[in-house]
Amino acid sequence: MSVTFAEGFTAGSIASGLKSNGKLDLTVIHNLGPKDDAAAVFTSNRAKANPVLWSMEAVKDGAARAVVLNSGGANCYTGAQGFQTTHKSAELVAEALELSAQDVLVCSTGLIGVQLDTTKLYPAIGSACQSMSTDGGLESAQAIMTTDSVPKLATATSAAGWKIGGMAKGAGMLAPALATMLVVITTDAEVSDIDDHLRAATSVSFDRLDSDGCTSTNDTVILMSSGASGITADAKEFQELLVDVCMDLARQLMKDAEGAAHEIAIEVSGAASEADALEVGRAIARNNLFKTAIYGNDPNWGRILAAIGTTSAEYDPYNIDVEINGVRVSSKGGPDQDRSLVNLVPREVFIRIGLNAGNERATILTNDLTKEYVIENSEYSS
Amino acid sequence: MSVTFAEGFTAGSIASGLKSNGKLDLTVIHNLGPKDDAAAVFTSNRAKANPVLWSMEAVKDGAARAVVLNSGGANCYTGAQGFQTTHKSAELVAEALELSAQDVLVCSTGLIGVQLDTTKLYPAIGSACQSMSTDGGLESAQAIMTTDSVPKLATATSAAGWKIGGMAKGAGMLAPALATMLVVITTDAEVSDIDDHLRAATSVSFDRLDSDGCTSTNDTVILMSSGASGITADAKEFQELLVDVCMDLARQLMKDAEGAAHEIAIEVSGAASEADALEVGRAIARNNLFKTAIYGNDPNWGRILAAIGTTSAEYDPYNIDVEINGVRVSSKGGPDQDRSLVNLVPREVFIRIGLNAGNERATILTNDLTKEYVIENSEYSS
Repeated sequence: MSVTFAEGFTAGSIASGLKSNGKLDLTVIHNLGPKDDAAAVFTSNRAKANPVLWSMEAVKDGAARAVVLNSGGANCYTGAQGFQTTHKSAELVAEALELSAQDVLVCSTGLIGVQLDTTKLYPAIGSACQSMSTDGGLESAQAIMTTDSVPKLATATSAAGWKIGGMAKGAGMLAPALATMLVVITTDAEVSDIDDHLRAATSVSFDRLDSDGCTSTNDTVILMSSGASGITADAKEFQELLVDVCMDLARQLMKDAEGAAHEIAIEVSGAASEADALEVGRAIARNNLFKTAIYGNDPNWGRILAAIGTTSAEYDPYNIDVEINGVRVSSKGGPDQDRSLVNLVPREVFIRIGLNAGNERATILTNDLTKEYVIENSEYSS
Repeated sequence: MSVTFAEGFTAGSIASGLKSNGKLDLTVIHNLGPKDDAAAVFTSNRAKANPVLWSMEAVKDGAARAVVLNSGGANCYTGAQGFQTTHKSAELVAEALELSAQDVLVCSTGLIGVQLDTTKLYPAIGSACQSMSTDGGLESAQAIMTTDSVPKLATATSAAGWKIGGMAKGAGMLAPALATMLVVITTDAEVSDIDDHLRAATSVSFDRLDSDGCTSTNDTVILMSSGASGITADAKEFQELLVDVCMDLARQLMKDAEGAAHEIAIEVSGAASEADALEVGRAIARNNLFKTAIYGNDPNWGRILAAIGTTSAEYDPYNIDVEINGVRVSSKGGPDQDRSLVNLVPREVFIRIGLNAGNERATILTNDLTKEYVIENSEYSS
């Protein structure tokens, strides 16, 4: 399962002690080949952690043989010493697995501004590399957990026989107590242009999660292909299954967002462009007044229209439809059905916005802003 | 005091019943002249309430004789019927005070999407106009309160003898339970170009408050001049005193922001442009992770750098200084002084960012994100 579901991958994990609770906190994933195709997308934040800076360079040639991931520290804003820690981590994996360090990607998650304890990290890398197994996928998913309550795994198998498997941890912009989204997806399909495939898939999945509007310094999504199935994948089918796996993981991330009491899908239709639909969806998803209203089971559509009013999307502010859980509460610049008809008790909330300005649409996934979110993020450093 | 501090202004207030608690909720301010110069700035939100749509037109000629303000309803997204209510309100003031309706500005604050009860509103306007007094300023400030805990007043007197007085209510982007910032400022100075003066003053005061990033549909700041002092003000002195009054009111708004446990000033210096400094300050002020950290007395500078990393401001992410309450916790892309030296117990927090990219600076005022904010905005509709 997870990153060892596809043929040609092994994984090993260990509790290095970086995480003070003694749980698994370091994992290494190895692509045994025959192919070593790799692609990755990284946080858009200009404040990039050292492992992101390293991996961006390492993956530029489109090849990678291994990934090492740790929780218990983000290794961000840790200066030259922090970059050296990342570099050395890649070298230790390379030595143990007989690779080039340039073929080893690195991911970290945890508190910003604190050096990783290398007396724990370095020996643990060697140990993890000695315990590599084709059954290691589940433990890998556990080792990257921070405040996640469950490991996140997804798989897909094509009719032709090739497979895709993946793992993820929240939270990215989701459950930000120890905020970072890390995703590793592996496949045994022979497939070309995997960078294009990955970017297309993340743009409609992970990029449309927006829990609290905050962007991590460490977000990384990696795709590696071993080609071990010996089957060349149909490009269209590969894209579809990759999107399925990404959406599956994205939904799991949203469901596990800490402190959330409602999972909210915001579908914006009738937009002049997809970019407009996304801008409107994000503006609503990031509006604290809207998010607290949903927490309070209050179908406060005025806050939705006020949020949309801050965008530059093409629409007439007085010709717009708002539907909350199936009830059209506002249309044409005024009230429509009575807001008391809306039932916000269920955990799943579906907001539909009709911009009446075109034919494009997009959906953003978010959650509400709760007391628990504030407590989580004020009481624990991250 | 307040809007009747300057010569030439009277005000009358009444409890119309729009506010269910029976407190003052409607006020009329009358400029007796001889001059009727007026200027106003309005919310940038494209979703504008009916009173905003009305007042934008009414003030276009640079003249106004009266303002009527109500709490207990925003009259926003109430369609043609709502606009008629605003229009009729202006007409009723005009009849009672023998003015043209085009010289009457209207402001409302309260819940979006609900019609104002005109059986309460209309008679109350007549009654308020019958109780106009040169002592009415304090009651005016009380009548526009929603969740404000105290009325906000400010005054200034020039050496030459002319005066400025003003009142404000939160919250605009501040205490958003019944979110709108309304400000009325009056002066008896003879002064030209008051529109320019008002825009210059609001741009460095109210525009630099950013409590929760949410923009109201009803925000309005009005300046009226009666010229009753008979003294022509020096333009520079007038600008200075107007800024003083605006800053005084802005600080009172921030201090009274509901649910806030810390008042935070974010000073960004070393910016390549003032726009860059403002963008960086706002990005920090709107970052929920930063805001919850301050609530938890946690000097989490990593969240500050991560927020700055989302901006397009000119700076090197690895040459930036962060100071929290006098302790430089980060410089040059790494940790500096130990974060444990920072004392976040006091209510006032001072964040200083050095971008090392130029000589411009700006300060944004905000507050923390607290459990109380979430409770306030989830349990009460607005």
